[in-house]
Amino acid sequence: MKASELFYPTLREVPNEAEIISHQLLLRAGFIRKASAGIYSYLPLANRVLKKIMDIVREEMDNAGAQEIIMPIVQPKELWEKSGRWSVYGDEMFRLKDRHERDFALGPTHEEIVTAIVDADVHSYRDMPVMLYQIQNKYRDEIRPRFGLMRGREFIMKDCYSFDNDYDALDISYKKMYEAYKNIYERMNLKFRVVEADSGAIGGSENHEFMVLADNGESVIVYCDECNYAANIEKAECKYSEDNIIKEEFLDITKVSTPEQKSINEVSNYLNIPTNKLLKTMLYVADGELIAIVLRGDRELNEIKLKNSINCNHLDIADENRVKEEMGFSFGYVGPVGLDIKVYADIEVSMVQNLVCGANEDGFHLINVNMGRDFTPEHIIDIRNAVEGDKCPECSNLLQATRGIEVGHIFKLGTKYSESMNATFLDQNGTNNHMIMGCYGIGVSRSMAAAIEQNYDENGIIWPLPIAPYHVIIVPVNVKKDDQLDVAMSLYEQLKEKGIEVIIDDRDERAGVKFKDADLIGIPMRVTIGPKSLKENKVEFKKRWEKESELIDIYEIVNKITNIIDK
Amino acid sequence: MKASELFYPTLREVPNEAEIISHQLLLRAGFIRKASAGIYSYLPLANRVLKKIMDIVREEMDNAGAQEIIMPIVQPKELWEKSGRWSVYGDEMFRLKDRHERDFALGPTHEEIVTAIVDADVHSYRDMPVMLYQIQNKYRDEIRPRFGLMRGREFIMKDCYSFDNDYDALDISYKKMYEAYKNIYERMNLKFRVVEADSGAIGGSENHEFMVLADNGESVIVYCDECNYAANIEKAECKYSEDNIIKEEFLDITKVSTPEQKSINEVSNYLNIPTNKLLKTMLYVADGELIAIVLRGDRELNEIKLKNSINCNHLDIADENRVKEEMGFSFGYVGPVGLDIKVYADIEVSMVQNLVCGANEDGFHLINVNMGRDFTPEHIIDIRNAVEGDKCPECSNLLQATRGIEVGHIFKLGTKYSESMNATFLDQNGTNNHMIMGCYGIGVSRSMAAAIEQNYDENGIIWPLPIAPYHVIIVPVNVKKDDQLDVAMSLYEQLKEKGIEVIIDDRDERAGVKFKDADLIGIPMRVTIGPKSLKENKVEFKKRWEKESELIDIYEIVNKITNIIDK
Repeated sequence: MKASELFYPTLREVPNEAEIISHQLLLRAGFIRKASAGIYSYLPLANRVLKKIMDIVREEMDNAGAQEIIMPIVQPKELWEKSGRWSVYGDEMFRLKDRHERDFALGPTHEEIVTAIVDADVHSYRDMPVMLYQIQNKYRDEIRPRFGLMRGREFIMKDCYSFDNDYDALDISYKKMYEAYKNIYERMNLKFRVVEADSGAIGGSENHEFMVLADNGESVIVYCDECNYAANIEKAECKYSEDNIIKEEFLDITKVSTPEQKSINEVSNYLNIPTNKLLKTMLYVADGELIAIVLRGDRELNEIKLKNSINCNHLDIADENRVKEEMGFSFGYVGPVGLDIKVYADIEVSMVQNLVCGANEDGFHLINVNMGRDFTPEHIIDIRNAVEGDKCPECSNLLQATRGIEVGHIFKLGTKYSESMNATFLDQNGTNNHMIMGCYGIGVSRSMAAAIEQNYDENGIIWPLPIAPYHVIIVPVNVKKDDQLDVAMSLYEQLKEKGIEVIIDDRDERAGVKFKDADLIGIPMRVTIGPKSLKENKVEFKKRWEKESELIDIYEIVNKITNIIDK
Repeated sequence: MKASELFYPTLREVPNEAEIISHQLLLRAGFIRKASAGIYSYLPLANRVLKKIMDIVREEMDNAGAQEIIMPIVQPKELWEKSGRWSVYGDEMFRLKDRHERDFALGPTHEEIVTAIVDADVHSYRDMPVMLYQIQNKYRDEIRPRFGLMRGREFIMKDCYSFDNDYDALDISYKKMYEAYKNIYERMNLKFRVVEADSGAIGGSENHEFMVLADNGESVIVYCDECNYAANIEKAECKYSEDNIIKEEFLDITKVSTPEQKSINEVSNYLNIPTNKLLKTMLYVADGELIAIVLRGDRELNEIKLKNSINCNHLDIADENRVKEEMGFSFGYVGPVGLDIKVYADIEVSMVQNLVCGANEDGFHLINVNMGRDFTPEHIIDIRNAVEGDKCPECSNLLQATRGIEVGHIFKLGTKYSESMNATFLDQNGTNNHMIMGCYGIGVSRSMAAAIEQNYDENGIIWPLPIAPYHVIIVPVNVKKDDQLDVAMSLYEQLKEKGIEVIIDDRDERAGVKFKDADLIGIPMRVTIGPKSLKENKVEFKKRWEKESELIDIYEIVNKITNIIDK
């Protein structure tokens, strides 16, 4: 492709709206353009990257025995009512009416449709397993679409669904998908981790997230280098041994004055007591009931673990003004002692003594507070976020932490949807059973953004070779010099003949502009044809991911590139 | 692919809802399933056909210099207001609101989005031409979705848009697309014709339709075997020579009794006068005004030509009850003589004399009516449908007629959208001009259905090889016989190794069932391994499009199939 013909409008300025690197670079490098909040057009370079990701996904899905189909985006309300999700989905689902006032949704996911299809045509265990997938736009009406392709309202996903006749067979289907997903991210040449995750609203039991590692990823992952344990922090269990228990004699509880000292750090500094000897007390409304949560002062509450532990659907932080009005103190001075509501304590709180907490009176804290003596929680449960240095729940090694971007998620659904939609089959004994389902998603457009979050520098994107829009860019320094242009065109034709995807920057621009653009759009290999090296029959070869370039004989460059790509 | 694993639920019964062949066969052969009126899921076999069509389309688009992009399906109202089409589009456009009550449309087409993209990033004639295309779902909220994939509400289209700096450049872009479209349908191995067509609501000047020929096609095409003229009957001009003029002396106009004789045929039989000597008179309401249309009795009115000729936006047949009430006669007895409204006459009416028409009095007709003497039309214009046997408007040969299905449509739009959306560029002289646009559509899912309408028999689909879901199906007559299964598996592996797409019907079903399914899903070549032929080391080879099968040596069959595919 000639750069003069390729439609890739690059921008010099970082667009204001773009907060994260992938969003900035996708806009600047001419990969995407915004049509509306969270809704984008993918320009030619982005289309090429997406196609490569899709090709890898398709090959691995096909190899795993899944069959590709295309399901509707516009889905009738009736199906969603059958599953019960029409009312559950809330504002996140785009809804519309047709000219006859019938209701439809823009599919945020396809469990309903695919279950209806399989139920209508699969009647016997002999016709199972069935694994069907599609690659298509999905819709989610986010309150605040942001981060470019990371949290859009219209985005491309691969979704796959398996239907098995029993749970052993589901295990096999699940395992096949697990392996396929690993292959996909390995083939995309991305650093990733598979982690245990919370199953969230979609339901089901076992599930794994595929996380592309990136410093600015929105998810925190803890993992163990000794065993294979890795989990999303939302899910990661905190385990303790005897060593974790600090044993001190109970001291006398005392009220101390802490004027204007509200935060954990303020109190810690003011009293000169470390944060891990403080109690963090928070008031929440759980399904309508005011409750208190206590953690060690240096810990973060994990709301998902809390919701799962206390079996709560709606969890919100309490309204401070109302608390102040009704209970007489500010959030900064709340503590579990004498509090007339249910208190849930994190396990760790039971392992430390003589703690500091709010006195439920503005301007005062209590010191030497002890669980059991001074307050009794309703439950002692694991509700804090795991952190680096915690014990691995599967071996005794210390956990490490990193950040990642969720790009894939696989679930064992069981009979959640086959029961609500009454999708059954006849088993070996002639009995009607509900189908056993799994579902398996990959964020295709999100994977493109995640690849950038993991691979960039101050000059632009650094595409991993397998998903780069083009492999090579050839830059004649001055297109008005025939000798440079001739060599460039000759290399261009030779590379194309080998099936290598190549851009020739034939624009009449300064070399600096061309280098900037080449770096910005992230083409993995650059061949520069300039006057000096040309005299020695050499070209400059630069890998985008290395700082230095090298001079290569003109007659060797095609082979060199071919070898790199074949590897 | 093993038939035992392939998800292609075939049906024995013809589904009630399916009126046309392609709809019936797509349902019966397990290619599609309905989700809602005009909204379908495409199952694995359909997906494979669609992908092959898309691959051909992509290759030809890329070769023509178009670049693939992906634009949003959910499009903001603001863009459609800019072009003026938000209000024009009416009920055919699916509309929705997001959670913030902002309005969106589900794209029925993408002129607005693509013009906004190109306008934002293309500023100079130096950056043109730009040709961008996508393959994607389109939406049209049809009043009565019907005919399966022919007239759906959610369907797959390729749409391409060109942006040029002048009309000569548009001619070049248009020509490239014209050739690409011809290549596409040739490569799909479909019989088709390119015809001149009416430009309809999308606007613009020159345009061509690509019609796949099929006996049940909804469009009528007239064409000339001598020159290359071909046109949609909606558009086809009627030309006349001296020979067409019949000259008779005017006879005396006379009122005759024709009780209960209302239709052209009834009057013709009753009076024993041929239909071509009758006048067909029809009352219409054109933009609110009652008008009369007269044609020769054996002709059909062409409403599109009428609307274009008299520059009318809304044309409806008049209400018979109201006419009866206000004017005192039924539709069957209307005639132009003495009628106090505008009369528009088809040109042909001026070439015949002594005609029969209604007397504007129930139960009576007039004979020997002559234009000029007995009535004077407002305009004499070309408003009838062309028919087989008419003169070719470009040469003197006689036209032929056939039926077709519109699968592609290319338009020169000119500045229709660049003006309304103010998309400009700087030309060679530094002047700001509106971009010159073209648009080019292919119905991808419709092409699949059209291919079936052209290629089927009483047993099922007969896929053209280039778009068949699989090339070959291998049928071991009895899978419990090891010798049959072994040969079948060996051929299966050999063919796969050659890159040939093959199904092995390994199901434990009767041979008759397997043959029926193979014919129904339309696989072009079938290899049957049965006990008799196997003794002679032969297999039965049958092409789907031929009646007879032949016996082929086992060691030759792979070569034979490879040769057919390579051709």
